[in-house]
Amino acid sequence: MTERKKRLDLFGKSKGLNGFLLTSPSNILSYSGYWYDFQTGASPFQLLPAVLFISADQGASLLLADNEESKSVSVHEGITIKLYSSYSYREPLMFRESFLSELTDGFETMKIKTGRIGIEGDHIPNVVIQKLSEVFPSIEWINVDQDIAVLRAIKDEDEIESIKLAANLADIGQEAVLKYAAPGMTELELFSKVRLEMETAAGARIPLMADLISGAATATGGGNPRTKKMEKNDFVLSDFTPCLNGYWGDSCNTIVLGQPSSGQQEIFESVKDALDIGVKALVPGNEAREVDRLMRGRLDMYEEFGHHGGHGVGTCYHEEPRIVPYNKMILEPGMVIALEPAVYKEKFGIRVEHLAVVRTGGPQILTKFNHRFSQ
Amino acid sequence: MTERKKRLDLFGKSKGLNGFLLTSPSNILSYSGYWYDFQTGASPFQLLPAVLFISADQGASLLLADNEESKSVSVHEGITIKLYSSYSYREPLMFRESFLSELTDGFETMKIKTGRIGIEGDHIPNVVIQKLSEVFPSIEWINVDQDIAVLRAIKDEDEIESIKLAANLADIGQEAVLKYAAPGMTELELFSKVRLEMETAAGARIPLMADLISGAATATGGGNPRTKKMEKNDFVLSDFTPCLNGYWGDSCNTIVLGQPSSGQQEIFESVKDALDIGVKALVPGNEAREVDRLMRGRLDMYEEFGHHGGHGVGTCYHEEPRIVPYNKMILEPGMVIALEPAVYKEKFGIRVEHLAVVRTGGPQILTKFNHRFSQ
Repeated sequence: MTERKKRLDLFGKSKGLNGFLLTSPSNILSYSGYWYDFQTGASPFQLLPAVLFISADQGASLLLADNEESKSVSVHEGITIKLYSSYSYREPLMFRESFLSELTDGFETMKIKTGRIGIEGDHIPNVVIQKLSEVFPSIEWINVDQDIAVLRAIKDEDEIESIKLAANLADIGQEAVLKYAAPGMTELELFSKVRLEMETAAGARIPLMADLISGAATATGGGNPRTKKMEKNDFVLSDFTPCLNGYWGDSCNTIVLGQPSSGQQEIFESVKDALDIGVKALVPGNEAREVDRLMRGRLDMYEEFGHHGGHGVGTCYHEEPRIVPYNKMILEPGMVIALEPAVYKEKFGIRVEHLAVVRTGGPQILTKFNHRFSQ
Repeated sequence: MTERKKRLDLFGKSKGLNGFLLTSPSNILSYSGYWYDFQTGASPFQLLPAVLFISADQGASLLLADNEESKSVSVHEGITIKLYSSYSYREPLMFRESFLSELTDGFETMKIKTGRIGIEGDHIPNVVIQKLSEVFPSIEWINVDQDIAVLRAIKDEDEIESIKLAANLADIGQEAVLKYAAPGMTELELFSKVRLEMETAAGARIPLMADLISGAATATGGGNPRTKKMEKNDFVLSDFTPCLNGYWGDSCNTIVLGQPSSGQQEIFESVKDALDIGVKALVPGNEAREVDRLMRGRLDMYEEFGHHGGHGVGTCYHEEPRIVPYNKMILEPGMVIALEPAVYKEKFGIRVEHLAVVRTGGPQILTKFNHRFSQ
């Protein structure tokens, strides 16, 4: 059993829960190993692509839409897979009825008719709890979204390996920017080359959050690529957050398409130094907010950057521990954290970012890209 | 007021509803004009990006996450916009509390304390109805997902214009395949060129569903592009479903990278003929299933294709009317329908697709691409 599953079970016990009914892609992946792509939004042929039921004492079961199943499904040991009818063309669509009936059957089979079940109240569709409450009026549904978010902050080694692979894609993206960015090229043209290199390395299309902007727009900190042409001496800010098999990577760099002024170079070095200081502080026992404070402190001669200093990364691109001024969460081994200090001036912005693991022996940086300001 | 809003109001009246609380991107766009991108999944800083409340007699109000608001928000006349606090870094995240408090305040302001409110039970998170039920125990929540799906089958002219723009992107994609596909190139490389042309025309990144496969994989009907290299005499099947500002286009073509055999050419012509027959049948008064039957009939010397003959297109990529053997829905002017007959053999598949509007004077084809089998 994975360490994270043990922590979930322990949490369930402490709250007197008889099980969990999990529906978000992040939690389903974390606790079952199953991931589905979401790049094109919800399917009109499914109530949900998947739902994971974890019983406190009778194992776990994953209910999947049968039009998901054609992909090779690989899940953690001991998890039963069931299917419900989703897409059809010979018969009217009955995915709602099939989903709810398979789900209630599962509860019947496990003889769960009473007790407390943890759910993601922010995510689970109302119709699911409405139906289950009709059939099992004695079950109490407990919202555990925020508790699980905190549990997920510490990663197991298999998860760190998965994040490392995604971080490698982000590295490939940064190298591609350095290789291809040129005056006269549009931001979308550059993005196309970057994404092709990342997707070729992944062997498939991947969900990809990306800031890729040039010129004065870098002062705003981010944005999607546009048809704007890059010009000589433009800054190019590239923040890539690719998702590989459900785990995210994260990396940011800023370059200038020409010769930076000494003032600009100095800011770049300061931001890079702030990042180094932040990474060094990723040690067990430190408070999350201390890492944020150290990075902001190194940049206190500039106007303060108006966003988090960093964030956890895992099956969600932003998760605990948030590296922000208020967060007293204590860093622990296995936390995977992206740090992204920045300086934004009136006409340009500079941000650099690394992704690292908190380790007993000192932080392990997962992004191997070496930030540089010039091509 | 749009015709679709009038139909929604009329439906609400017929069901004795005092209003609607809509949460899915498709419905929010249809009835408010507001769209948010969903390419990278749910935001960890929002309960929902948006919720639309439509009162039976007091206008409509759109509640948005304030980190959505920086985009220029343009909505239908008469809709009030309110914001809730989502992303923050100086204070702990309170998006759940802020969302639920703004929502209940809105109900208080409108003096809605009782009655029947239509919701999308398949979509609305349980915590929202849980909270509203606590504060307003006399309100009855009615699931109207399927009813609205049927109402949305008929499009207004402004929607048809939006779909036409998305269909134009699909056309650009098909022309790009004919222009660039070549032996030695990977499917992902071709996809990169196709997507760049579509995104450059759109001026931005767009959600894009795409089958883009070559060789024997075309026999399966679809799939995402891979690192497989295309070879001489390979079939290339390209089905592009791009989303522009929330409205979808749809188009499919199949080419062969070389000289087709006369048998292959004959199948291509048959499938194209089946499509023409289907499009001609898109006239008011026909049953949806009749269009499906006619297309399958033209291809009855081949093994029957194992998917729908077509589907409605709008703010969702597959919607009513479904063009399938069981669907007795009567076609009406303003329905926008994609037809996609196909023949799948053991070693290759051929599918072509057009998107058209049902009009009193005869169907209007929105995809302008002229299907061709050779470059």
